[in-house]
Amino acid sequence: MTDYQELEARHKRMSAIGGALAILGWDQSVIMPEGASQSRAEQVSALSLIIHEMQTAPDMGDLISAAEADGGLDEWQRANVREIRHDWLHATAVPADLVDRKIKARSASELTWRSARAEDDFAKLEPQLSELLSITRDVAAVKAEAFGCGLYDALLDGFDPGRKSAEIDVLFDELMGFLPAMLDEVLAAQEAAPDILMPEGPFSTEAQEALGRKVMELFQFDFAHGRLDVSLHPFSGGTPDDSRITTRYAEEDFTQSLMAVIHETGHAQYERGLPKAWRGQPVGQSRGMTVHESQSLLFEMLAARSPEFIGYIAPQLRETFSGSGPAWDDENLVRLYHKVERGLIRVDADEVTYPLHVILRYRLEKQMIEGDLAVKDLPEAFREGMRELVGVAPETDRDGCLQDIHWPSGAFGYFPTYTLGALGASQIFQAATKADDAILPGIAKGDFSALLTWLRANIHGQASKLMPGALIEQATGAPLGTDAFKSHLKARYLRA
Amino acid sequence: MTDYQELEARHKRMSAIGGALAILGWDQSVIMPEGASQSRAEQVSALSLIIHEMQTAPDMGDLISAAEADGGLDEWQRANVREIRHDWLHATAVPADLVDRKIKARSASELTWRSARAEDDFAKLEPQLSELLSITRDVAAVKAEAFGCGLYDALLDGFDPGRKSAEIDVLFDELMGFLPAMLDEVLAAQEAAPDILMPEGPFSTEAQEALGRKVMELFQFDFAHGRLDVSLHPFSGGTPDDSRITTRYAEEDFTQSLMAVIHETGHAQYERGLPKAWRGQPVGQSRGMTVHESQSLLFEMLAARSPEFIGYIAPQLRETFSGSGPAWDDENLVRLYHKVERGLIRVDADEVTYPLHVILRYRLEKQMIEGDLAVKDLPEAFREGMRELVGVAPETDRDGCLQDIHWPSGAFGYFPTYTLGALGASQIFQAATKADDAILPGIAKGDFSALLTWLRANIHGQASKLMPGALIEQATGAPLGTDAFKSHLKARYLRA
Repeated sequence: MTDYQELEARHKRMSAIGGALAILGWDQSVIMPEGASQSRAEQVSALSLIIHEMQTAPDMGDLISAAEADGGLDEWQRANVREIRHDWLHATAVPADLVDRKIKARSASELTWRSARAEDDFAKLEPQLSELLSITRDVAAVKAEAFGCGLYDALLDGFDPGRKSAEIDVLFDELMGFLPAMLDEVLAAQEAAPDILMPEGPFSTEAQEALGRKVMELFQFDFAHGRLDVSLHPFSGGTPDDSRITTRYAEEDFTQSLMAVIHETGHAQYERGLPKAWRGQPVGQSRGMTVHESQSLLFEMLAARSPEFIGYIAPQLRETFSGSGPAWDDENLVRLYHKVERGLIRVDADEVTYPLHVILRYRLEKQMIEGDLAVKDLPEAFREGMRELVGVAPETDRDGCLQDIHWPSGAFGYFPTYTLGALGASQIFQAATKADDAILPGIAKGDFSALLTWLRANIHGQASKLMPGALIEQATGAPLGTDAFKSHLKARYLRA
Repeated sequence: MTDYQELEARHKRMSAIGGALAILGWDQSVIMPEGASQSRAEQVSALSLIIHEMQTAPDMGDLISAAEADGGLDEWQRANVREIRHDWLHATAVPADLVDRKIKARSASELTWRSARAEDDFAKLEPQLSELLSITRDVAAVKAEAFGCGLYDALLDGFDPGRKSAEIDVLFDELMGFLPAMLDEVLAAQEAAPDILMPEGPFSTEAQEALGRKVMELFQFDFAHGRLDVSLHPFSGGTPDDSRITTRYAEEDFTQSLMAVIHETGHAQYERGLPKAWRGQPVGQSRGMTVHESQSLLFEMLAARSPEFIGYIAPQLRETFSGSGPAWDDENLVRLYHKVERGLIRVDADEVTYPLHVILRYRLEKQMIEGDLAVKDLPEAFREGMRELVGVAPETDRDGCLQDIHWPSGAFGYFPTYTLGALGASQIFQAATKADDAILPGIAKGDFSALLTWLRANIHGQASKLMPGALIEQATGAPLGTDAFKSHLKARYLRA
């Protein structure tokens, strides 16, 4: 067995353990009785520790160096070694006691956050979040030294490998150059038009679920390799051969669960389309959070919320929910799905305002990581930023800086990938529809086969052969930018 | 850390991995989409292999010897070391290549069995079952040498530690001394009495499930630490803090699913009652299959099928299923739940005939393991045995030697534990009701708290501190025997 083959064998095992963890994680969110949380935590911790031990095994560095020197590897194998070294660097950069302190601080902070949010009591969370931030800054410092980059970039790299905050600054500045004015314009146009009508429920969970499954089938979700279930927060989990997506149902509003299902189907189809030949290897994995979010947003925002698809699905909506009257007209349904609002809650935000929520969080978390913003000053900075960027300020911290789980769970550096993903979705969709003129007419007929074929070849099947930036450039002919997103927003929201 | 503490730490990790495997196994039977079977097999194999590697680590034998020489251990710790050595002997007795051959042969044989049974084609299974038997005999040979016992006893020890087939022969001979004549007598009495009426369905799955949950609550199943779901074959899985029991529903017959739920609740309550202080250690585990089956059968056969409990639950049955008329009378329901029949299928058998099905299988598997019966001669030997022991012979192998998964999955030595468990159930129930005269009146009121309290103290909470034989003797004051079972059958079926 060559050193490279030894690396493959070890990563195959790590991936199998990772797959087990993915199923256990799904189970915990969907199925597990609450009294089992302690024993589940022990299972997850044991398996995570085994992966960590394998990844930081004393001979791993030498194996990787030897594989890098192996002249007989093909392009995919070389990329696999690159990914293996990347994972190894992340795993070995942080000393074991710091890993342990971070896990404990994260667990304490996340737990406290749940009640602090429910009680709108930021002071309760502050000490634990401060501790977690301090540990996260220590982690960032050791990783920054190992990678030779800045603190924030060291964390960002864990979610979107190779991405630099200097690039994000440029992209987000461009967005700030047109979004605020555009938002004014969109809202003015929306107000000048007739009121958008909300179809009246209740809409039974059973009917919503049946519709969701039907739409998943349109998007070619393979139920022999996946499931749809219910959880508190929609997510996409499981493994490429066992996709577990979830949603939640509100009986008074079917529109959210339908789009959540399509969004998660986008994530699931990405995983499902990863190359079978590279299952279990780092190079065979999805290409970070930005590309992942580009796939879910492409399905949801570009395909499913298009007037063409809404026109296709509208008769089925009316039939499913026995809807009639002006709220159920195609035109009103399109406007309902394109409604723009200065809102307080990120996860409820529309396409136009969503980047503003993200940019605020990006700015704040960068300041926190760089030591320029203390946790105790976060609520006020958040309120101020909302007023400035979105144009509304939360009256409570529950609707403000306590609304998201990311910081209390230690995921600093994650937020920008939502908006980078939105940029990617527009740019990739533009390239796809340009490359194959059967895609748009397909969407208007509820037929996503041409779109999926293109994505399989150009995104999903590429897995992690390239770095995220290079993958998007190869697929679209240009580095990630804001032009396609801007054009998309103007076309959809200003009919320009 | 002492050597003993090191052993505890390692077994805690193995147990956490085992818990993960238990949840994955449950998921596979209840939830998993079929296309995921290959990737699930890889996850299960990776985790199983890690446990095996930990159990056969080169320094394990020395650690165990050192712990055995440690004079500072208390009673439970010493028992833990005894169990650890026992597990270690089983794990190390078999060379790695033989383990590997057995896993592969078992998987092939089990897969073929599914279609061979469906097609009633024993010839199709024969080569793979022969191969599996041959490998199992090799495994038995190396274990027999390591333990200093016979071939069959070496396998039996994996299911019921310390049990010897010589003891089983005595018990089963005793059963054969009264069961055949008793069966004739019971059937004659049953025929002389009015016909037993079957309540007419359909019985909705929803109503059956709601009733099942209600009855589980009577039996104090803790839904904060467990679930009830549906699977093809009812089973009890998960972990002590996360009990996952399943059943299946037939719309034309509610009686089976109700008793299956109670049976599995008996298994689950045993696991739930294992001592919290010994979670994750071998000594904290349940005491083998005989004791496990004694707990499920005690709940089902002794408690739930008692005329007292049926009298208690009968009004709820009538209410749940809107039942009225003679089939729903208390008296008929009792007789329905006590119906005895010379049937072909073990899992459908009643208390009186069940041991005959087991004794046949015990005889046949002992002959196969000892080389006195070839797989090709199994169908005829099975048919002959059924005619002799149960009094009916199957016309097809599907209803004959192909009906059970045990042999095709390599579980030789398992069958006798069903009937040993039945003997244990009667004997333990007799001791419990003698020790606490609140138990019987409780059952008649649907109140199982006194019964559960006694079982928690005398069986569940004892875990694996003693060997199975000693545990039963300590709990009941006598070695496992047939007297209590015989008295129970006579009282219930002959009102003697």
